[in-house]
Amino acid sequence: MSLWFGGDYNPEQWDEPVWAEDDALMRAAGVNTATVGVFSWARLEPAEGEYDFGWLDGTLDRLAANQVRVILATPTASPPPWFTLAYPDAMPVTRDGVRLTHGSRDTYCAAAPSYRVAARRMAAALAARYGQHPAVALWHVHNEYGTVCWCEHAALAFRSWLQKRYGADADGLAQLNETWGTACWGQCYSAWPQVQPPRATQWRGNPGQLLDFRRFWSDELLAAFCEQRDEIRAAAPRVPVTTNLMLPDYQVIDPWAWRREMDVVAVDHYLSGTGAEGHADIAFAADRARSWAGGRPWLLMEQATRLVYPPGGRVLSRPPGRMLRDSLGYLARGSDSVLFFQWRASRAGAEMWHSAMLPHAGPDTAAFREVAALGAAMARLGEVAGSTVTARAAVLLDADSWWALDSQGLRGADLRYLDAVRRDHAALRRSGVVCDLAHPSGDLSGYRLLLAPALYLLTGAGAQSLRRFAADGGVLVVSFGSGLVDAAGQVQLGGYPGALRDLLGIRVEEFFPLPDGEVVPLSPGAGPGSPPGPLPAGARGATWTELMTVTGAEVLASYAAGPLAGYPAVTRHGVGLGSAWYLSTELDEAAHGQLIAAALAAAGLTPEVPGLPPGVEAVRRRAAGGRSWLFLLNHASEPATVPADGTELLSGAQVAGSLELPPGGVAVVREQSRSS
Amino acid sequence: MSLWFGGDYNPEQWDEPVWAEDDALMRAAGVNTATVGVFSWARLEPAEGEYDFGWLDGTLDRLAANQVRVILATPTASPPPWFTLAYPDAMPVTRDGVRLTHGSRDTYCAAAPSYRVAARRMAAALAARYGQHPAVALWHVHNEYGTVCWCEHAALAFRSWLQKRYGADADGLAQLNETWGTACWGQCYSAWPQVQPPRATQWRGNPGQLLDFRRFWSDELLAAFCEQRDEIRAAAPRVPVTTNLMLPDYQVIDPWAWRREMDVVAVDHYLSGTGAEGHADIAFAADRARSWAGGRPWLLMEQATRLVYPPGGRVLSRPPGRMLRDSLGYLARGSDSVLFFQWRASRAGAEMWHSAMLPHAGPDTAAFREVAALGAAMARLGEVAGSTVTARAAVLLDADSWWALDSQGLRGADLRYLDAVRRDHAALRRSGVVCDLAHPSGDLSGYRLLLAPALYLLTGAGAQSLRRFAADGGVLVVSFGSGLVDAAGQVQLGGYPGALRDLLGIRVEEFFPLPDGEVVPLSPGAGPGSPPGPLPAGARGATWTELMTVTGAEVLASYAAGPLAGYPAVTRHGVGLGSAWYLSTELDEAAHGQLIAAALAAAGLTPEVPGLPPGVEAVRRRAAGGRSWLFLLNHASEPATVPADGTELLSGAQVAGSLELPPGGVAVVREQSRSS
Amino acid sequence: MSLWFGGDYNPEQWDEPVWAEDDALMRAAGVNTATVGVFSWARLEPAEGEYDFGWLDGTLDRLAANQVRVILATPTASPPPWFTLAYPDAMPVTRDGVRLTHGSRDTYCAAAPSYRVAARRMAAALAARYGQHPAVALWHVHNEYGTVCWCEHAALAFRSWLQKRYGADADGLAQLNETWGTACWGQCYSAWPQVQPPRATQWRGNPGQLLDFRRFWSDELLAAFCEQRDEIRAAAPRVPVTTNLMLPDYQVIDPWAWRREMDVVAVDHYLSGTGAEGHADIAFAADRARSWAGGRPWLLMEQATRLVYPPGGRVLSRPPGRMLRDSLGYLARGSDSVLFFQWRASRAGAEMWHSAMLPHAGPDTAAFREVAALGAAMARLGEVAGSTVTARAAVLLDADSWWALDSQGLRGADLRYLDAVRRDHAALRRSGVVCDLAHPSGDLSGYRLLLAPALYLLTGAGAQSLRRFAADGGVLVVSFGSGLVDAAGQVQLGGYPGALRDLLGIRVEEFFPLPDGEVVPLSPGAGPGSPPGPLPAGARGATWTELMTVTGAEVLASYAAGPLAGYPAVTRHGVGLGSAWYLSTELDEAAHGQLIAAALAAAGLTPEVPGLPPGVEAVRRRAAGGRSWLFLLNHASEPATVPADGTELLSGAQVAGSLELPPGGVAVVREQSRSS
Repeated sequence: MSLWFGGDYNPEQWDEPVWAEDDALMRAAGVNTATVGVFSWARLEPAEGEYDFGWLDGTLDRLAANQVRVILATPTASPPPWFTLAYPDAMPVTRDGVRLTHGSRDTYCAAAPSYRVAARRMAAALAARYGQHPAVALWHVHNEYGTVCWCEHAALAFRSWLQKRYGADADGLAQLNETWGTACWGQCYSAWPQVQPPRATQWRGNPGQLLDFRRFWSDELLAAFCEQRDEIRAAAPRVPVTTNLMLPDYQVIDPWAWRREMDVVAVDHYLSGTGAEGHADIAFAADRARSWAGGRPWLLMEQATRLVYPPGGRVLSRPPGRMLRDSLGYLARGSDSVLFFQWRASRAGAEMWHSAMLPHAGPDTAAFREVAALGAAMARLGEVAGSTVTARAAVLLDADSWWALDSQGLRGADLRYLDAVRRDHAALRRSGVVCDLAHPSGDLSGYRLLLAPALYLLTGAGAQSLRRFAADGGVLVVSFGSGLVDAAGQVQLGGYPGALRDLLGIRVEEFFPLPDGEVVPLSPGAGPGSPPGPLPAGARGATWTELMTVTGAEVLASYAAGPLAGYPAVTRHGVGLGSAWYLSTELDEAAHGQLIAAALAAAGLTPEVPGLPPGVEAVRRRAAGGRSWLFLLNHASEPATVPADGTELLSGAQVAGSLELPPGGVAVVREQSRSS
Repeated sequence: MSLWFGGDYNPEQWDEPVWAEDDALMRAAGVNTATVGVFSWARLEPAEGEYDFGWLDGTLDRLAANQVRVILATPTASPPPWFTLAYPDAMPVTRDGVRLTHGSRDTYCAAAPSYRVAARRMAAALAARYGQHPAVALWHVHNEYGTVCWCEHAALAFRSWLQKRYGADADGLAQLNETWGTACWGQCYSAWPQVQPPRATQWRGNPGQLLDFRRFWSDELLAAFCEQRDEIRAAAPRVPVTTNLMLPDYQVIDPWAWRREMDVVAVDHYLSGTGAEGHADIAFAADRARSWAGGRPWLLMEQATRLVYPPGGRVLSRPPGRMLRDSLGYLARGSDSVLFFQWRASRAGAEMWHSAMLPHAGPDTAAFREVAALGAAMARLGEVAGSTVTARAAVLLDADSWWALDSQGLRGADLRYLDAVRRDHAALRRSGVVCDLAHPSGDLSGYRLLLAPALYLLTGAGAQSLRRFAADGGVLVVSFGSGLVDAAGQVQLGGYPGALRDLLGIRVEEFFPLPDGEVVPLSPGAGPGSPPGPLPAGARGATWTELMTVTGAEVLASYAAGPLAGYPAVTRHGVGLGSAWYLSTELDEAAHGQLIAAALAAAGLTPEVPGLPPGVEAVRRRAAGGRSWLFLLNHASEPATVPADGTELLSGAQVAGSLELPPGGVAVVREQSRSS
Repeated sequence: MSLWFGGDYNPEQWDEPVWAEDDALMRAAGVNTATVGVFSWARLEPAEGEYDFGWLDGTLDRLAANQVRVILATPTASPPPWFTLAYPDAMPVTRDGVRLTHGSRDTYCAAAPSYRVAARRMAAALAARYGQHPAVALWHVHNEYGTVCWCEHAALAFRSWLQKRYGADADGLAQLNETWGTACWGQCYSAWPQVQPPRATQWRGNPGQLLDFRRFWSDELLAAFCEQRDEIRAAAPRVPVTTNLMLPDYQVIDPWAWRREMDVVAVDHYLSGTGAEGHADIAFAADRARSWAGGRPWLLMEQATRLVYPPGGRVLSRPPGRMLRDSLGYLARGSDSVLFFQWRASRAGAEMWHSAMLPHAGPDTAAFREVAALGAAMARLGEVAGSTVTARAAVLLDADSWWALDSQGLRGADLRYLDAVRRDHAALRRSGVVCDLAHPSGDLSGYRLLLAPALYLLTGAGAQSLRRFAADGGVLVVSFGSGLVDAAGQVQLGGYPGALRDLLGIRVEEFFPLPDGEVVPLSPGAGPGSPPGPLPAGARGATWTELMTVTGAEVLASYAAGPLAGYPAVTRHGVGLGSAWYLSTELDEAAHGQLIAAALAAAGLTPEVPGLPPGVEAVRRRAAGGRSWLFLLNHASEPATVPADGTELLSGAQVAGSLELPPGGVAVVREQSRSS
């Protein structure tokens, strides 16, 4: 068993003499994995129905001879130019009706039959040829599914999806009208052909239509994936199949649904910052991937050696010397791989300035030496492959809530779904507790603490699941913006949050968003004279406030000024064996941390390694037989002493009692067998 | 006689059991008015030519039984989806050629014959059925007219409008070429079919074409309104007809033209701020509505109980406790109604988060209690219905100036028309004087002070009217950006402002806009050694400066630094019995206020109630027989003592000599009969 | 011999009585030049094939009678509306597929055959009629070429251009695939018809396609120019032909290629600032124009008397009193003209608010008096016509580098090409040294110092030229972002900057852009203990840093902190008789100035007039026989004493030893013959 180390390999961009250098340098760098063929459709099928596999045959044989396992991709994310000319109707169309053309990648409508047929045929041809090839360790369908289209094919497929959801007859149409609330603004559909994708229209669109269109596209893309997967499975039944999920700020697909169809969860992750926000990014990405993988090992399919994409458009570069620490960040949280886009930097094309394992300047560079050192470290860490991470806390994450919030939900509220989830995740991480992301309707029995930020849409099953969680002894912390609409996207009446009102012991009458930059002071406790709650003096709320009353909950903090002065702001409600807390405003970071600390204490959860200084990250992977590995990452600029016992794998040194981590230092300690 | 209290009522969004609750809660809240049917086209005509009035029959009967008068709307602002499929050519097209589709509201081109026929037929059908229905107190045509289209139907209608304006023959085309200045950039038209809407073109468009296109659309939409109105009048000759004019920052129609066709002026108004800017907003909206109504009572057809739309996109909420004060703001200035969008908050659709009289949380809420209290107050104020407000000052307001400034006028100058008008209006309001908005060519004989901000386009009649006003003893205060172009949109030569040069006794040679954020100091008087004018020391100009010389005017302030140092900045010119003042720069707020105070003094105008502290608003409504009601609104955070005598209607208390208003407090005093 | 003074003259916008006033006022203002006919196509050809030259005949005769020479324009920048209706396929199409229409100017696709035929026919007709007209001193083809189109005509022309470049056969297509790197993202073309303009596509486009599309358009527009020029030359062989190149921040054409086809270089220049940035603007524009003219006199074809277009959209106005100084700025650097857009301010149309020589307010204005004074000054300066400016320093300027950087080059780096060039130009100007702009492959033998900012794309010939320059004794200062890609737009491997690595004696491994606003301190010299280099203590880098090692160069400054601490930042490499310097970061202004000073010293260059205070500009024009004129412009707010001898032409005063310049003052001294 070993960790996967390597990256995307595109020998088709280079002449043959370069290939021999690739072989030698891969060996030198400890590369044992290459992802091949991601964009090679035009090469493999230069004209419709004419295949040329010679180059790929050679590449696979060469890699096999070099002891490099192959992740073989289907190239369907980039149809060749001839496809555009043959099937112009399969080119994607924007919301405004602009039909796109080739010249980039992903120039297809995934709902166009001609595209689907061509993609499936290509997958089948690859599977037939390489299904039994010994080098192929994993199949990689497509690349970063995530394009949306508003063309007529999309319209037909959307309508068909809706008919499956609501029923294809008049009752189904009535149900759609009811669900979307088409009585508002006189949008009632009287026949199915009237139903269209949410194309450019005069003013605001219908939230139900927008939400269902997103749901449809996740399903449609998943169907496209499954078609290819099935072709591969038929020809190569023993090799697992995956696709690489892109982890940007926007998510076209619902990973909770997709993971059920994937043999292995694989993600691509590109950093959004070079400093502390980058470390938070890595943990958030890795925890998501592990959670989608159901706690099993997953694959980091792509990261960049250097490139960092911060908000705002300026492209930065990860500082030298950080590759190992950042890669351990993924490994610590359950990845069995460290893979990069890409092995050798391109000298032309759209990604010519994308950083790579082997930079333009060649092997005699700090970057390549860092890659090779990382490869050596990967070899020393091989024994952790297959081990897992178990979390007792989780942040709830739900595609429907994200999509619904983005589809005219709480317009103008500056309530950005992923930011809210990220904020709760970061607070737990700062507290030293490793957490999962969890789906509200999933199995929550393993958790003792759940955070529910901006969980705008909550199904009946989800609400029931949360109720059971608290009743069984869990601590549930719900933040504003949660539980507002049901599965149909409709407001539940009688007071917010309709689905959670009783559980939380509160009733919210109305929302009072704060102007940008404005804060409101909070009083600890229920007001003057009451005992202080877990919030510090000086706590403040931002972004959002609510007029609410308690119907059973205890008030932990109240608004101390402004139009809501005296009303409850933060509450706690004892429920069965557990409790349900509610935050009606966005707490400042210190108050938020203190509230999370109180919730952790209530849940009986402690940090992975108690007492660590800020900036030191500790995560433990475990395996059968009580084996465990403690990953330690010192992100701080001070040295840190960390209690540990065992063998430090990178250095081979024995650790007894404690370990000294220099600033930026890392360690992976195979621990003395302690019972987990 | 009573005030109209209630709002949009959309029972079609709810099931029958809810209707009974509606009846009861409307009674509890004192609702006496419901606007019905605004978006019910798809319900009333589910397929082309097939009508289903059953639901509406029942609604009207039920409301009548509940003593609720009905404002019956034609539903033509939202054609049903079947209309799109039947008449795809009637869907609107953007400037860039994107054809929009249904899925929102207002998805039609108002110039498309098929739309016009369908809309008119629907209005006729409604009028035929409900023309004699006793519940119907007012007809409400369409909703917030204001969409523009660039399609081929629009092109035909635009061309036809131009041919009526300029003549359909070659001479007419020559006149159009001359007016639009097509000799510039070689745009001369040699045949009528060449004339098009100002669609997407390479660089800047032609200002004449842009201006006429706006004029055309106001007229075209008005024609659409009149068609429906005439159908209704034919069937229901005794019930007045209106349409609700939207009061945002942008105005597609010319209300001065529209009001002539409306039996009652009705406006929709949504706040842009939760604080002082919101109060200014209300006064500005109400004064505009009253002015368009020619001083007669008007209707506030829509406001929101809570939602506030500040610039920048974040949606806020009006603080609890402000509904009464803000509603009195409209009543004080002549409204005979307080109506809301909408009665019951929707649980789905594009407006599901729009606030309502009855919130999602139901009647047991602070919001509904506030609504009911407002309803009770409305009942106590019934006697003011029909009374009026008379102003002796006015700010000039003109659609042509707005449109022309927006159509390549003074490009890049940051001279936003409505902001300039709003600034002058706010200065008068702060001075305690109630003002109208007035059209430059209207009857100005009732006024003693006129402010003319950014009156960019001035017709010959308008200029003549202003000259007569000053000659007859009025005080006219003109600000920069006024009188620059004539009715054709052409610059009047020989020095700015061509149409007003002699009246103002000045001659502006050139403009020197200031960079954003830069200010220039002013010297009071004509320069060193001259007697000080009405401006305070330390006065500053911003945004704009001008190189001008006086040809008769007295210099009130000069530029004290910069490239124009020593040139006049503010002037006053004695004219007949009156005077004409000129501001060549944007004065800071204090200096502006002081200048307005001097102009008020010159005009012999005093505040409605002299000596009020800042933030206390006083407006008087009057009726025949010397009856009057003093509305008092304390927007300040300090209590205020206000001189008053009579009966305070909200409390029923007698007021003798003076009245104490707490912070945020309001009063309506029926005054002892004093002669008006 | 005399200087050209005047501007665009559009009598077609006025009635005949105005023309007589024009004649008189032109005489009064000393106008000797009028540009006629720029937008008169609709007037000259009111219907297809029907010409009406009567108006133009009269205008030319009238101008000739008034001693005004004519620059006769072909009106092809604005096809008449009838053209749109006759040839809808010739209307331009945006990248998104929006077809534009008339209503502005430049509404054509320059690759559309019907447009090209019509334009050529119009040029031929004008040439036939006026080829021998004595008033015509210069032909002015079209106006500000610079529009791009993505229509099918453009696609055909682009494909044809590519086939000429790469070969029309399969080998050519293979070469295109190789050059564009289409193996990346699977974009390989298998047949020529698949190759299209870079229309809207899903994600990022291909850099090679984008670069070639820009090259194509420069050539295509040049071909359109040449067609007209050849028609004119055939009919008017003795009159020179030009076109006015627009000098904004973006350049669609490659002036180095265009100048070879122009008999005279003419530019339009509009200021971007009213202060010091405006003076830098003028020098930069004039130096570019002179350089394109190969050092020969050139024409300032358009400037504005007042209008200034700063970044951000607010339009400002040049302060009164600056026309002469600013105009001398162009003359000093080799212009033989001061021409304006336009003579008489339009009263309507898209440019009605464009400033003019004769403002709306007429001749009795400060502006017109300033124009007339300028005209008088021009008359006194006639003797400088034909004299030239010689520079020994140059900044390299290259359209390919600009285009390639803009075409996905160094994405997100905030490395804006023209800003980088402008920065180096400004540093030289502040040092008092007049410089050219030079093409890397041009004749560089006359220079002793070359600055190469952001010279992203470098051909083999260009690199060879720079190597020879340094070997022959020149001082070459290269800044980061240079020499990264070859003529094909492909990265040269083995270390940056591939083409210049040996010359600079360095090897850059990787780029580390800095976040916006972040700076990094530099240590003078190679590090602690090393002798200080030419940079001051406290020097800082911004925007960009690089990890590099020296392979022969001397380290002038190192990074003093951050992830690259200790690595070289600025280097110098002795090469043959000269040296090659490298800046891997953007120096702060003081450090940049000091480095440039050191480079000037190494090159043996001194200011035109040594010892001048900051803000005083001195440039010398020279003529045969040792004659010279020293232009002195005092932009500072302090008076300045400048050494000079000779006759000051504006005042006629004799200057002996020195001259006093008041703040804002100017002088032109005909110097005692000194050998140049």
